This record gives sequence, C-alpha cells and structure tokens, in this order.
Amino acid sequence: MKIILLDGQVKNYEQPKSVLDIAGDIAISLKKKCVGAIINDKDVLTNTALIDKDCKLELITDRHDLYKSVINYTARIITVFALKQIYPDAEIVPQSDDLSNDEFSVYFDYPKGMKFEELKSVEEKANKMIAEKTDFVFGKYSEEEFPELIRKINIKKEYQDYVKKECESRYIKYEIGNYKDDLFFARHALLKNTGSLFKIELTQLTGAYFLGDSSKPMIYKLHGLAAQSKEDFEVLKTRYEDQRNNDHKFIAKNLEIYHLDPIIGQGLPIWLPNGTILKQEIKKYLMQKEFEYDFIQIETPVIGTSDLYKRSGHWDHYREDMFSPMQLPKEEMVLKPMSCPHHISVYNYKQRSYRELPLRFAEHALQHRYESSGSLTGLERVRAMELTDSHIFVRPDQVKEEFIRCFNLIQEVLSTFDIKIDYLSLSLRDPNDKHKYFNDDKMWNEAEEQLEQVLKELKLDYKKMIGEAAFYGPKLDIQAKTALGHEITVSTIQLDFLLPQKFELAYVGPNRELLRPIMIHRGLVGTYERFISVLLEQTKGVLPLWCTPRQVEIIPVQNNGNNEYSEKIRKELKKHGIRAEIDKRDERLSYRVRDAQIRKIPFQLVLGEKEEKENLITYRKYSSEESVTIKLEDFIKLLKQIIDDKVYV
Amino acid sequence: MKIILLDGQVKNYEQPKSVLDIAGDIAISLKKKCVGAIINDKDVLTNTALIDKDCKLELITDRHDLYKSVINYTARIITVFALKQIYPDAEIVPQSDDLSNDEFSVYFDYPKGMKFEELKSVEEKANKMIAEKTDFVFGKYSEEEFPELIRKINIKKEYQDYVKKECESRYIKYEIGNYKDDLFFARHALLKNTGSLFKIELTQLTGAYFLGDSSKPMIYKLHGLAAQSKEDFEVLKTRYEDQRNNDHKFIAKNLEIYHLDPIIGQGLPIWLPNGTILKQEIKKYLMQKEFEYDFIQIETPVIGTSDLYKRSGHWDHYREDMFSPMQLPKEEMVLKPMSCPHHISVYNYKQRSYRELPLRFAEHALQHRYESSGSLTGLERVRAMELTDSHIFVRPDQVKEEFIRCFNLIQEVLSTFDIKIDYLSLSLRDPNDKHKYFNDDKMWNEAEEQLEQVLKELKLDYKKMIGEAAFYGPKLDIQAKTALGHEITVSTIQLDFLLPQKFELAYVGPNRELLRPIMIHRGLVGTYERFISVLLEQTKGVLPLWCTPRQVEIIPVQNNGNNEYSEKIRKELKKHGIRAEIDKRDERLSYRVRDAQIRKIPFQLVLGEKEEKENLITYRKYSSEESVTIKLEDFIKLLKQIIDDKVYV
Repeated sequence: MKIILLDGQVKNYEQPKSVLDIAGDIAISLKKKCVGAIINDKDVLTNTALIDKDCKLELITDRHDLYKSVINYTARIITVFALKQIYPDAEIVPQSDDLSNDEFSVYFDYPKGMKFEELKSVEEKANKMIAEKTDFVFGKYSEEEFPELIRKINIKKEYQDYVKKECESRYIKYEIGNYKDDLFFARHALLKNTGSLFKIELTQLTGAYFLGDSSKPMIYKLHGLAAQSKEDFEVLKTRYEDQRNNDHKFIAKNLEIYHLDPIIGQGLPIWLPNGTILKQEIKKYLMQKEFEYDFIQIETPVIGTSDLYKRSGHWDHYREDMFSPMQLPKEEMVLKPMSCPHHISVYNYKQRSYRELPLRFAEHALQHRYESSGSLTGLERVRAMELTDSHIFVRPDQVKEEFIRCFNLIQEVLSTFDIKIDYLSLSLRDPNDKHKYFNDDKMWNEAEEQLEQVLKELKLDYKKMIGEAAFYGPKLDIQAKTALGHEITVSTIQLDFLLPQKFELAYVGPNRELLRPIMIHRGLVGTYERFISVLLEQTKGVLPLWCTPRQVEIIPVQNNGNNEYSEKIRKELKKHGIRAEIDKRDERLSYRVRDAQIRKIPFQLVLGEKEEKENLITYRKYSSEESVTIKLEDFIKLLKQIIDDKVYV
Repeated sequence: MKIILLDGQVKNYEQPKSVLDIAGDIAISLKKKCVGAIINDKDVLTNTALIDKDCKLELITDRHDLYKSVINYTARIITVFALKQIYPDAEIVPQSDDLSNDEFSVYFDYPKGMKFEELKSVEEKANKMIAEKTDFVFGKYSEEEFPELIRKINIKKEYQDYVKKECESRYIKYEIGNYKDDLFFARHALLKNTGSLFKIELTQLTGAYFLGDSSKPMIYKLHGLAAQSKEDFEVLKTRYEDQRNNDHKFIAKNLEIYHLDPIIGQGLPIWLPNGTILKQEIKKYLMQKEFEYDFIQIETPVIGTSDLYKRSGHWDHYREDMFSPMQLPKEEMVLKPMSCPHHISVYNYKQRSYRELPLRFAEHALQHRYESSGSLTGLERVRAMELTDSHIFVRPDQVKEEFIRCFNLIQEVLSTFDIKIDYLSLSLRDPNDKHKYFNDDKMWNEAEEQLEQVLKELKLDYKKMIGEAAFYGPKLDIQAKTALGHEITVSTIQLDFLLPQKFELAYVGPNRELLRPIMIHRGLVGTYERFISVLLEQTKGVLPLWCTPRQVEIIPVQNNGNNEYSEKIRKELKKHGIRAEIDKRDERLSYRVRDAQIRKIPFQLVLGEKEEKENLITYRKYSSEESVTIKLEDFIKLLKQIIDDKVYV
C-alpha cells in the first residue's frame, strides 16, 4: 500500500493503518494535532479511519482550512445527541455538509412545533457532555445492518429515500459514552473527545426546506457556535455579533423589513409592513427631488414582447440574465430586465420637437433578472428589483448640461443619506471584445470622448475601467463604500448612441429636418433592494426619523389602565402623519421599554397616570437615558421639524 | 343557372346576369335601391357584378345591415383616389374589410412622415370628386395582367406577398372619371356614382401595424366619416362627437393619459406622463385614507411559483385567466393573477396572536390576467392591472365590525370622486355548480349567512345574485353606473373561509390554543385602469384640480419676450408643489389659449408686460371667460385651498 503525502513523500505499508498512526510516523507532534485527513483531494476522514488502499493523503491539523469544519461537525454530533435525549421525538434530518461557516447547524423535524426558548435545555445538555470528556466511538454499519436500520427508523419517507440514495456506502455509527443513536450522517472528520470542545452556544432557530427544495416539507434549522478554547470562543462570538449588527440580513430581520418565502419564489423579497414604509418614504423623497429637477414620472409594463428585446439588442447581449419567455397565442412575452425599450416607446408615441428636449422620463421600475440560486443574497442580490431609473432624451448640444444636472441630483440625494462617494469610475469598452459590445468604432470613440470631456470640464477625479461599459455605451459609475467596506456602484450615468439608432428615434429640428437624439441612462440610487441593504448596514438599523417605519412607540405604564389615553395620543399623532403604535403586550414596563430599544424605535412615549391627569406626554429618545415631559403639541412640533430636516435624531 | 333568393324564390337564367338586372327582375323599385348582393352568405359583390353560377343571392338595399359597409367602402375608394392625387408617393396598404363602424379608414405608408393637418387638401379633393358625380368604372384583371401588375407596383415586399396570397382571385380595377389607379382591394359592393355620397370628412390620423402584427412595419391609418345625405351626416357626426366626448379612449387620447404599443404587448397600457400623475395622485389619496383607517401597506412580488397557486386553488379554478408559466431551473413561475396567496405568506411569516388581529394588509398590487386579444378595450379591459387590494385577517368576532369599517372607507372614497353607488349586490354561489365552487356546503352556508346578517344589521339594500360568488366565498359588490350608463363593480368586500384552511392559517388565542382566522378580501376602487376609465368618462376629462396632470398652463403673451418672468412664476409654483408648464410654442396667443381649453387645463396664466411690470399674474379658469389679475401668493393660496378640499373647480 502506497501513501503519497502532500509534500510528495511516499510511505509504504504492508497492513491497513489508521490516519493517526500515519501522522505519528511523520512526526510525534503531528499525531497530537491531527484530527483527520483528506483522501485523494476528496473524502474527509476522521483520524481513526483505517487506510487500506493506495492514496494521496493530506493531514488535517489546527492550522488547516478544514479544521473549522471538524470543530463544527463535532459540535453538530454532540448537539444532535443532546437534542435526541431531551426531545426523543425530534427527527434528525440528513443534511449536506456546509461546515466552513462560523455557525454550525442541525436540521430536524418536530411536528408539534418548537420555539427557540425551548432549546435552552439542549444547550445545557450539550455542554454537560463536553464537561464529561467522553470519547466518540464509531464504526461502519455492515451491508446487512444498513437496510434493516433504514426500515426500522421513523424518519419521513422523503428522508429515507435520500439516505438510501446518497449515503449508503459511507455510513458510520456513533456512540458517545452511554448515549447511542442511529444517526445518518456522511462520514467526516471528528475531534477525538467531547472534551476537545470548550463550549457550544445555540444562537437561533429558523425554518428551512429539506435540501433547500420548496416542494419538500418545511423543517427546523438550529444554529450554534462552538470553539475549542475560551479565547477562540470569544473571538468567534464577537465576530458573530458584529456580523449580526452589521449584516443587513440580520438587521432587516430584527426590524422586520423583508421576508423570503420559497413557495413565492427564490430571490423575490416580500416587503413586510416596516420595509414597505421605509421603501415608500424613500420613494416619496426621491420622486420629490426628481420633481424639483424637472424629471417626469412614467409607468410602463413589467413585461414586453421578445421582439422588443430582439430589436433593442438585449436578446443578444443580455439573454442569459433574463427569465425564460411566456408563450401567448399571438405573442411571446418576457419579464423586462431593463426599461430602456419601454421608455423609448413613450418617446416614440408621438413626433417630438427640438423644443421639447431634454425629455427626462423617470420610472421607479420593477425589473426581473435571472440570477443563479447560489448567488442570491438577502436584499443585495435578488431576482426582482425596483430600479430608480431614468432615460433622458437630449440634443447633442445638451449632453453636458444634462450630465451636470444628473450629477448634482445624485450628489444631493446621496448626501441626504450620508453616503460618501468613494470615487468615480469611467467605464469604457474593451475594443477587443466584439462579442459583448456592438461593433461601431466611430460611435464608441465619440461617446467615450464626450463623456471624458465632460468629466474634465467638471474637474472631477475618475478612474478609467476598460471593459466595464454597458453593451450600448460608456458610463460613469458613482462608487461608494458600505459600512462593511464593500465597494458598490450606487448611481450611474450612461451615454447611449446605439438604442436611438436601433429604434430610429428622431425629433424635428428648427428647420423641420429630422434629427437623432442621444439617450442618457441614469440610475439615481440603483435598486431599492440594494440601496436599502446598504442603508441598513451603514446605520446599523438606526434609521433617520423621516423614513423609519415606526417613529413612536407608545408604552402605557399600566397595560390595562391607560389604553384610552394611549389611543387618544396615537390618533392625534396619526392625524399629523406620525407613525405611532401602542405596545399592548402583557409584559412588564421595563421589558417593553427595552424591546423598543432593540427595535431601534426613535421615540418612546411612556404614558402613566401623571401624564393622563395633566394631559402631557413623557418621551425618551433612542439610546438616551433622559426622559422629558412636555405637551403633546410641542412634541409633535419637535418631530415634524426633525422629519422635515431629514436629519438623524 | 339557378339563383335562390332570400325568401326561397328561385330564378332560372340561361346567361350570366348582373346583380342589378336580377334585382330589376324582382321589382323595378329594387333595381333603384340595390347597391350590391351577398352570394352564398359569404361574398359581397357590387351591383354590376355578373352572376354566372348557381348560388344563393341576397340583395343589399339601404335597409340592409351591410348598407353602412357599402357607404364606407365607397368613401374609402374616393379617399384613396384623392390621396393618391395629392400625394402620389403615398403607398396604399391593403387592409381587411371592417367597414361596419361609423368611421371608415384608409391605411397607407408615407416614409417622409405625415401630419393630420397636411391631409386637409385630400378631404377637399374627395369632396370635389363627390361634387363631380362621376360613375365608378371597374372590371376584373385578367390572369395575365395580375402578376405583371404586382411586379410593376412599388409597394413593400410585405404587402406584395399579402396581395398575392390573399387577394389574387378577387381583384378588380377601378376608375373614377379621369382618375385611374391600380388599387388592391378585395372586391366589395360600391355605390354607383361618387355623387351617391353627400360628404366625406376626415377625422384623425393614427399609427397602426400592417395587419395588426407588431413584427410588421408601422403605417398610417386615416379615419373619416361619410354619409349619403345632410341629415344622415349630421346624425353620424353628432354620434361620433358624443362618443369622442364620452368614451374614455378618446378623452384619454386628448389628455395623453396612456398609450398602447403592440411591440410592448397587447393590453398592456403604458402610463404617459399625464396619466402617471393622475394615477399617482389618486394613489397618494387612497393610501392616505388607508393610513387613516389603520390599513398597513405591504409590497409583494408580481410572480409566484405555480406550486403556490396549486395550493391556493387558483390553478384549478382560474388557470385559463392566467399567463402561461415560465420555467426556471428549479422552479416554475407564473405572473400573479391575484395577491391573496402572497398576503397569506406575510400573515404566515411569524406566529400571530389574537391581540394582533385584525391585520389589515393593503397593497396597490400589479396583477396580470390573460384576456383574449379580441376583448381588450382601452383601460377598461387590460392584461396588466394594478388593484387597490387588501386582505384582512380577523377573528370570527371581528367580522361585522371590520365589514362596516371597509364599507365606510369605500363610501368615503367614492364620494370624494363623486361616484354614486347604484346598488349593492350580494353574490352567492350556485350550489349546483360543483366545478366552479369548492365543495363544502357547511362552510358556504356559514359564510353566506354571516354576510347577509351584516347587511341586514346595517340596514343596507341589496340584490341577491346566485352564481356570482368567487370560488372561495360569497361577496358584496358595490355597483355604480358610469356616465355612459354602464353598470360596473367599483368596489368589493368578500368573505373567505377556504384559503385560511388551505394554507392552515392560525393565531394563538387567549388560552394559548391555535385558532383559525377568517380572511376578508377588499377591493377599494377596483383597478386603477378601470377606475380611471370611469373617472374620465364621468368627468369628460375635466378632472378635479388635485389630481389633474397639469394644473396651470403659463402662456406668455409674447413668446420671445416674457419667458424669464414665466420661468420665475413656474419655479415659484413648483416650489409649492403646483404642476405648471409654459407653452413655449411659436403660435398666436389665441391659439395657445384655445389649446389649453381643449386640453382642459384648469387654470391658464396669461403673462404680458403689464403683469411683469407690476409683478402680478392674470388667470382664467377652464370654461370661464373672466380674467382675474392678482398677486401670485394669493393665486397660490387659492389653488392650495381647492387642492386640499379636493373639490371640482
């Protein structure tokens, strides 16, 4: 038997040998640290596994990329044993092994329903098992044992089929001390002893579909953290908490901004009540700014014929990002991936005169793009998105002035949201890429020169990016850095000489001659989905008063006493357009105040007998300890001022 | 040769005989009145056509349904001859014969571009030809002549193919006095003499696709009216004008509300700038009302998996009204025809408590329904529509109160728009129709009784309509009469016990028991498309100030003198959110004033030297002769009051 090590060394053995013994042969210190091995760049084995064939072998120690997986796999097994002991009816569901994250997970089914709070005892049990420092005992099921086992077990038919199909050949039995169970997991490297872990902490319980497939039943996914030492655990916990505080997915979850439901469809966020307020308030503001800058709103269908996109060139250049077409008796329809051709139809619906230009059509337009399911991420990468879109039709002599107007609008809007422009990117075509870009050197050179000319005249700094242009023309991307340091394109201004040509656009000039307009594509703050994800990360969810979903939380001191006064205050606030709700829950005052803080509600009104008797209100700002008692009308005046100024509280 | 007449009489002839002679054989008076005949219930022949085969023959006289077609066909031929003489480059495009409308039409191509005004001389020419009382001369092309003719003519390849394929066997030549042309029209009955018409009036010039097919080139469609006597013409003209003034399609065209473009897709209205303002202003108002009535806005995707609609029952009960599905690698998606399942997903995304109910989710939701292309009509019947939708989740003890709240909201909103409720329709199932309605007698009886009970308690009059219920439950439809006397369902409140069951909805009751909520579907004013069509017809386009697209038209007395002052006034009005534009066209003052009246703009500001010098404005209301000169700030105050009160000017 010939074992080839990572550095090319070759070891020869006559007899089968365990991974641990091979590690010991290389160096005594390795034997201590080795928790498993990768065989032939593929299978991950635990350190007691016997090697009996020629193979390539890579040892896993604490410095290895996969070490994290070994810890997580160990934590998973311990948690599964703990769960089964506390809730024997919980059916563990087999899962594919994504173990490289900070969190480990356990999938299970529990038809009676389970709440996260009810899993506290499981966590205690798991840590008790760690304290007991018990060795793991495991072996392989025989070919006779396995089918019998499958028949015996109680898990759903669906999981049985999966286990039979996917795992049969790679099955191992587990025992931890007195705890035995028939568990169906793919073979994987494991730490030697439960005591090899320092601690397990369960973090959350979410819902998931078996194998991520929405036609399969809904099951539970239990998340947890595990590490080998106090120091490691603290590092992990801090990173995890930071992520929760900075990642829009976690922030959005706390604030109830959006929801993804596989039976609605992948990558299609549903805006929950809070998210809808946030989105609609931002939209109101953006549309007001567009009104001030003389943009004209239009609304166009979210579908178009495939002929339309054949004519525009999207069919050739952009088809793999589009949803598949729908067949109607007389037409083939597609979900629109971009609105340009629709806006062209509005331009084209009547003859245009040079006096009408620039025509600035704006639309906050729903678009659909097909992204692979693997790339979908929260609000950041989705399949349905609403773009703050505009297409401006200009005469050649108006390009510069219009460009400046767009840039000013973008600057004003971004500064309202406190988003700093990092740099400007001038995206040009790659002249050698004839597939991506339409082929007309003269037109490209003209457009690129014109855009660069404007940037120079405006004395704006920019970076040139070759090969980043759209297929129809060069563009200026406005780049910002998010709270997490990611660079994103927040706004864009693009020149287009191609679509006006393809759609034979024209306007009547001063001498009644037909002339061709130039198109400018303008994205104000990109899509609402992406923009809100950035906003949540940047503010950590502490949104400015004007766009925050719930502006005021009314907390009656005695929940059954002050509801009438609370309701009166709520209605009065509502009359002034202020979004206020009463916390009617049957909880202690301190709990409700703390909960309003967690939900980052800017103003809390605590209403007791004193307030009711004197017709006053007592308010507390978010993250301030001070309570102020004033007349309601003064409170409303204060709020309205902050809302109008669009400042942070 | 055997001719069977309509009354069963049989005439035998040895020789071919003209239609006219056959008519004369029946009665001398018939010979005078006969303009053509229908052969074998199919072909329409002119009265000089020779009959040479056995056939069934029906004479066309002035009392016949097809007489209208004969007049229109005659008017078309005269107009075509007139057009070709004035514009020899105009290419007449063959068309299928829909001649039974009030208007006749001529399709033609004219690549240099044509405006309606430029066709005045064509109308004059046509009427001159009528005055000349010239006989039509026509005959059939021989089999040798026809292909030669096709080769000679200059019309586009596409039309040539069509002519060859569709018309070859039925071709006739036309001559009118000295005017000769090779025209390609299907053979059709014609009046004897150009003087048989009293008058032709051209009414409008629109764009159309050849044979209505969007992949074909765009051509012109010229519309006109024709009649045989002064009296007939006046009746026709009055009816035509009435229709233009009352039909939302004509009103919307004048006001530039929406646009249909076949390359975008059939039945998919594009909201033009004016229509978008109108729609968005109405939406702002409706959402404000919903806010006041404690509805909560949400936004859900416009697509869903087909699994979702299988579960909801739409797939079984509503599939033929849905667009065909789109195939993604892991999912099958459909455009949503209704939002109920999406709103259920929002209800279901977390556990609900009895304290949270009623939960009133509102969404102004885009939906798509497949309607056959023949049934599509303006904004009234479309394939994409935005419904003022809501789904309310209530406890059984809340149904009555919630029903009253919905009814009050609907009443308040309809009265703002001055829409009178005609009657209430209680739509119940047909218990025998097991296909349309889900089968659960107990549930149906319960829901129907509960709804009727509420109506009785509210002392509302209603009509019972058996078989008009939705598939999931009974409903109350609020019926209104439009300006044209059509009865429409403007709002609806529907009870639903079925979907909560299908989706296993629940809330936690006071004793921690799981209970099932009831759903109420509420349509506030139906879809924006339908509602705006009603509003346009009811107001004849004179919209209330608050939602009218352009509130103020600024008309500088001298177009090149006062633009600076005009621009100052425009900006000042805009600062106060008032929608004002300057008419910069190089036209006489009286023309621009009249044009603003035609476009039904509520306020016209005429700004001359006097106004500029004294820093004043002069305004005139729509359809008022009086001019008033006041300070701008007083004018703004006046407008704001009218806007806030939402009254008609």
